[in-house]
Order: sequence, then structure tokens, then C-alpha cells
Amino acid sequence: MPKIVDHAKRKEQIAEATWQVIRREGLDGVSVRRIAEEMGISLGALRHYFDSQEELLAFAMRLISSRVHARIRSLPFTGHPRQDLEQAIAQIAPLDEERIAECEVWLAFAGKAVSDDTIRALSQEVHEQIYHGLRQTIDSLILQGLLKPGIDPEQETRRLHALIDGLVVHCTTYPDLFRTDDLMQTVSYHLDTLFVQP
Amino acid sequence: MPKIVDHAKRKEQIAEATWQVIRREGLDGVSVRRIAEEMGISLGALRHYFDSQEELLAFAMRLISSRVHARIRSLPFTGHPRQDLEQAIAQIAPLDEERIAECEVWLAFAGKAVSDDTIRALSQEVHEQIYHGLRQTIDSLILQGLLKPGIDPEQETRRLHALIDGLVVHCTTYPDLFRTDDLMQTVSYHLDTLFVQP
Repeated sequence: MPKIVDHAKRKEQIAEATWQVIRREGLDGVSVRRIAEEMGISLGALRHYFDSQEELLAFAMRLISSRVHARIRSLPFTGHPRQDLEQAIAQIAPLDEERIAECEVWLAFAGKAVSDDTIRALSQEVHEQIYHGLRQTIDSLILQGLLKPGIDPEQETRRLHALIDGLVVHCTTYPDLFRTDDLMQTVSYHLDTLFVQP
Repeated sequence: MPKIVDHAKRKEQIAEATWQVIRREGLDGVSVRRIAEEMGISLGALRHYFDSQEELLAFAMRLISSRVHARIRSLPFTGHPRQDLEQAIAQIAPLDEERIAECEVWLAFAGKAVSDDTIRALSQEVHEQIYHGLRQTIDSLILQGLLKPGIDPEQETRRLHALIDGLVVHCTTYPDLFRTDDLMQTVSYHLDTLFVQP
């Protein structure tokens, strides 16, 4: 092991190991002891990064948001608002192994939120970030005159958000019923009904 | 206890006790032993109705579908297709204590499906039943000429199904962010975009 350990990088590796345990065993499988085992490090070494299970789960959940935001920020935006929105939405869809992992962990948190208030609060934080991102986008598209008249920005954002999350639940939970590109096809079908035709 | 026990009724009571444990402790809290405790009956008495945890969970999940279908069948259908569809959708929304319980249990199953294939199969069964019900409705509305032209029945069903499930996830997981009638308002906003205006 190199002498100078990148602290932030190491935390992300621990969070990724946590994701793997959540995906294999569910959220109840997670404990600091179990994650230390998973990584082949001592409990003390893990505690250097995360004092408690709560801290570890909070970091693991927030890592999903920060990864999604980092991908969206680094997108090669085309200047075509419709295409750019589709690209951004694709960052929260289970389209490759990285995003499948994120979606599975997000869904495990949503399912566990029902019986666990700490998990609920973490899950709600991520929900609100995505809602606000979508709301800003809808507001901006309306201002640019790109959406059909008569659109209610709040209802439209709620509808788009629920549509995306519903599709993520369906594609993540029932991968046998959906092909990889089904989700984005339905999103595209939906956006066709919103955008003024060029 | 009466001498003649209604076997079917007793199974439903056990399933309801299972729902309560899922809602309080999550799916990992469920075992035949734990449910016997919850009901204050012996393990042997419970095993009279359910031999294994798998059987118990399968019955508890399928009870959601059969309750939803029973409510839909007994709706006072008005003959106004738009109103009738809204009434039916309301049966799978968390609008009262009974439906909140069903939605929470459904979501717990979806979250656990990620790491558990038995749970995934059960959850998929319910998913497919609802999809087919919605698809029949969309097909029938198209045949009656009630929906706007250019509607793709498969995409429209996927979109409506995902929208409903996404809204159910949001309202069930984040009850602080949504009022009881928010879900049906967004559904109604969506249906306004599909139906030909009278």
C-alpha cells in the first residue's frame, strides 16, 4: 500500500464496497464490521474513515448524487436543449454497470425508507436535489419558449420526476422485462409531447 | 376463539400482521417465528397456515393485488371512462391507511428485489398484472376514440404505469413532501394530456 493514501479516494472505495453488499444482501447486510470484512481491512482501519454505520450509509447514498452530478457536469452539451435534457436524464438511468449499481442502491434505500427514518431522510435529500434540477430545467425551457403552451411547471416537474423514477424502478427491479434502451425510449416519447415541434 | 375458524380469513390476518412487521422493521424482519410472536400464537399454529417464510411472503404480496382488484371490481363505475379510470388508479395510490400499508409493503418488496430473486419474482408478478390491466384500459379507450390521435398503446401504458409507480414511490417514501391529493392531481394533469377534450 502506498504511503500516502488519498483519503477521499479511499472513502469512495469503501462506499463502493458498501454498494456491493447492499446489492447482494440488501441494506440490512450493512455494518461497519461487514464492510471491513468485504474490503479485507481491519475494523479499526475502516473506523478511520467512518465512525458509524450511519455515517457510512449517508456517504454511500450521497455518493450516488455526487457521481450523477459529476457526470452531468462533464457532458458534452450540444446546445440543443432537448438533446441535452435527454443526455442528463440518461445519467440517472440504469444504462451501464455503473448506473445499474447506483439505481439498485437508490431503490434499496427507497424500499428501506418505509421502516427506517434515517434512511428516509437520506433518500429524501437525494430526491429533493433531483427535483430541483428538473424544476430549473423545466422553468428554463418554458422561458425559452421551447415547451408547448399551457404547461404548469410544478405539475410538469412532478410528472417528469415520477416518470423517470417509475421507469428506474421498473427497469432496475425487472431487468428481464425491459431492454436497456426501453427507458430512454419512453422518456423520449414523453418529451415529444412537451416540446414544441421544430 | 370460535370453534369454526375461517381458514381464508385467518390467512389474511396473518398476512396483515406480516405487513405490519414489514412496515416497522423491513422485509428482513419477517420470519415465521417473528410473525407467530407478533400474533401471539404458537409457531405450530402459524405453520398450520404457512409452511415456510417463502409461502408467507408470497401470500402477503399477492394479497395486495387481490385487495386492489377486489376494490376495483366493487367500484361504483359511472360509465364516464375518464372518471372510471381515475377511480381505478386511486385504488393503487396511498390515499388512506389501507392503501398506505399496501404501498409501503409493495415498495419494501421492490427495494428488496434487488438482492433477492424470490422477492423479485413475486414483485414482478404484481407488476405484470397491473401492466396488463392498464394496457387493456388504454386499448379500450383508443378503440372508443377517447384518446388523442397518434398514441402508441405500448409506450402510453409504460408511461402511465411508470408515472403511477413513481408517484407512489414519492408519496410513500416522502410523506412530508406530498399532500394526500397530490398524487391524483398529477395523474389528472397527465390524463388531461391524453383524452380528447369533450
